[in-house]
Amino acid sequence: MQRVTIDLGPRSYPILIGRGLLDDERAVAEAVSARDVMLVTNEVVGPLYRERLTRGLRGRRVETKQLPDGERHKTLETVGRVLDALVAARMNRDACVVALGGGVIGDIAGFAAACYQRGIDFVQVPTTLLAQVDSSVGGKTGVNHPGGKNLIGAFHQPRAVISDTDTLRTLPERELRAGLAEVVKYGLVADADFLDWLESNLPALLALEPEAIAHAVRRSCEIKAAIVVADEREHGARALLNLGHTFGHAIEAAAGYGEWLHGEAVGVGMLMAADLSARLGWLGAAEVERVRGLLQRAGLPTAAPPIGAGRALELMAMDKKVLAGRIRLVLMSRLGEGVVTGDYPAAALAQTLASHFGSTA
Amino acid sequence: MQRVTIDLGPRSYPILIGRGLLDDERAVAEAVSARDVMLVTNEVVGPLYRERLTRGLRGRRVETKQLPDGERHKTLETVGRVLDALVAARMNRDACVVALGGGVIGDIAGFAAACYQRGIDFVQVPTTLLAQVDSSVGGKTGVNHPGGKNLIGAFHQPRAVISDTDTLRTLPERELRAGLAEVVKYGLVADADFLDWLESNLPALLALEPEAIAHAVRRSCEIKAAIVVADEREHGARALLNLGHTFGHAIEAAAGYGEWLHGEAVGVGMLMAADLSARLGWLGAAEVERVRGLLQRAGLPTAAPPIGAGRALELMAMDKKVLAGRIRLVLMSRLGEGVVTGDYPAAALAQTLASHFGSTA
Repeated sequence: MQRVTIDLGPRSYPILIGRGLLDDERAVAEAVSARDVMLVTNEVVGPLYRERLTRGLRGRRVETKQLPDGERHKTLETVGRVLDALVAARMNRDACVVALGGGVIGDIAGFAAACYQRGIDFVQVPTTLLAQVDSSVGGKTGVNHPGGKNLIGAFHQPRAVISDTDTLRTLPERELRAGLAEVVKYGLVADADFLDWLESNLPALLALEPEAIAHAVRRSCEIKAAIVVADEREHGARALLNLGHTFGHAIEAAAGYGEWLHGEAVGVGMLMAADLSARLGWLGAAEVERVRGLLQRAGLPTAAPPIGAGRALELMAMDKKVLAGRIRLVLMSRLGEGVVTGDYPAAALAQTLASHFGSTA
Repeated sequence: MQRVTIDLGPRSYPILIGRGLLDDERAVAEAVSARDVMLVTNEVVGPLYRERLTRGLRGRRVETKQLPDGERHKTLETVGRVLDALVAARMNRDACVVALGGGVIGDIAGFAAACYQRGIDFVQVPTTLLAQVDSSVGGKTGVNHPGGKNLIGAFHQPRAVISDTDTLRTLPERELRAGLAEVVKYGLVADADFLDWLESNLPALLALEPEAIAHAVRRSCEIKAAIVVADEREHGARALLNLGHTFGHAIEAAAGYGEWLHGEAVGVGMLMAADLSARLGWLGAAEVERVRGLLQRAGLPTAAPPIGAGRALELMAMDKKVLAGRIRLVLMSRLGEGVVTGDYPAAALAQTLASHFGSTA
């Protein structure tokens, strides 16, 4: 078992990473100290792992709330259903919400835990690679609004995260690849050595070799943790984690959410960020090709849909990270070092957009 | 204008207290720095004060969301309507929610501000005595659930509070008196001198003499602030603020919420706490009569409904502050000094309950 400690003072918590942790009573006992547990999962993950986790929670009172699967259920109304379940089970302030599933379940369950009696304990048991490397670090919880993604939510740190890497065996391969895009992101913004390691170990990761997966999850959590600890409430450095996201947002929004997986859109977005960085003279052409090659070997798309540069710019500007009309982007000053900037020639961005989205609007 | 600073480190904020602050552009400018404002009010308070406050906010973009009046609308669904309004107005993270009204409006608007984009600024403009002395200090926001009061919410400190004491002139007298019960509470748990002052100045307070009201609001905020600062997340000392509340809960629950005003039930509850404190030898009989006399002179009820001691005990035990079957109560070791304890003879509590609620179940 590997362990990463997220150091947030009184809100510090451990991430436990390894095989078979789901029903490892010692690991589960360390993560969940409450006697009353509300297990929140969905109709896909629940039937696969609910019983094993409940066995690991032996001796507690465990109630289960199983939600429908999918991002379209990440709404305030679904949070209300979890809150109803907490009230119906007469859970007290010392109860714990355990989220078993991917990022959507973690976001919903975490927000419900944040709101119930003004905040109760919350433990994440992420079962997707994306959730293990991204959603489980940072304390962001919340739901979508018809007017925008993640517009409603709270910062609520979990008490612990249990990342059982064996659960990735039931993950659809397309989702595994999308999760790898976020892993690559950590290398690109913060750790050139990790990027090298990823290039060497991509086959092992795609084959779900336990040691490679555990290392990738651990290192990703460490990198995200270092950034989050420096900027818990997202006022500065944390924006680095949005590498590829503003470009990716345009892809997701143009295609309609759900067509592209988030990680797929972010992958293409990172390539565009590399392209723009190269136009600014920060990366060489060979480095841009290195990014493209890594994404291709991970089985990720590298071509954006041909929506036209004009439409793409419009969609990017609608992203909530835009302040007073100026689009701040995460670029790379070199591979392994992200930089947040709004200080680039508009023409360079236009060229990047045209070369990926096509020049017609 | 008087000023109380709530000292919570990076979440510190000022409470501005005085006459005519609602359209005092300098006071409003100090409290609200945002350019985009969502003014949340209700159908009773809005028509009275909305225009004046909007005038004070001259130069900003002000959108208004007017909610129906009453505690029964303090629900997650109503919070959703405020969030809808924030999204519809395309408010950004740097927008500010301004709550104009009593405690219900403050609770709803504050919770919406806590959830929107994971937390935006929030300014309270309380227009009831209860809200000015209680709800505006402490950062508690939230809504009711059919299963219990205030079960859903967040701790979210305001950026500032503007207590315009002139707004109390439109407050129904019964609500003014109920608010005074909470003012008396601060004297009883924390400040014998303030209790003396209240006894001398009760007529001035009931007549809404500006200086007396401003002093009562300021001193109440100071006392609550000192307690909240020591225990922001309600793990210990903050329980002192519940003097009279557990007894009062039984009255409110038995009568059906809405029959008794909260402050009225708390008033009788404080008298019962004094009675039990006397049975423990901590207060003399004359001191209990002093409490009763003060409540009576404030025009507050001092007799509980005859629901029987058994039923009252049952309702008290259902209160969420009960841990593992033991009812912790706030009592007084002397007038002006509250103490939280579960260490009293059950027989003494039974006698207090029987003498107030009657002995039959």
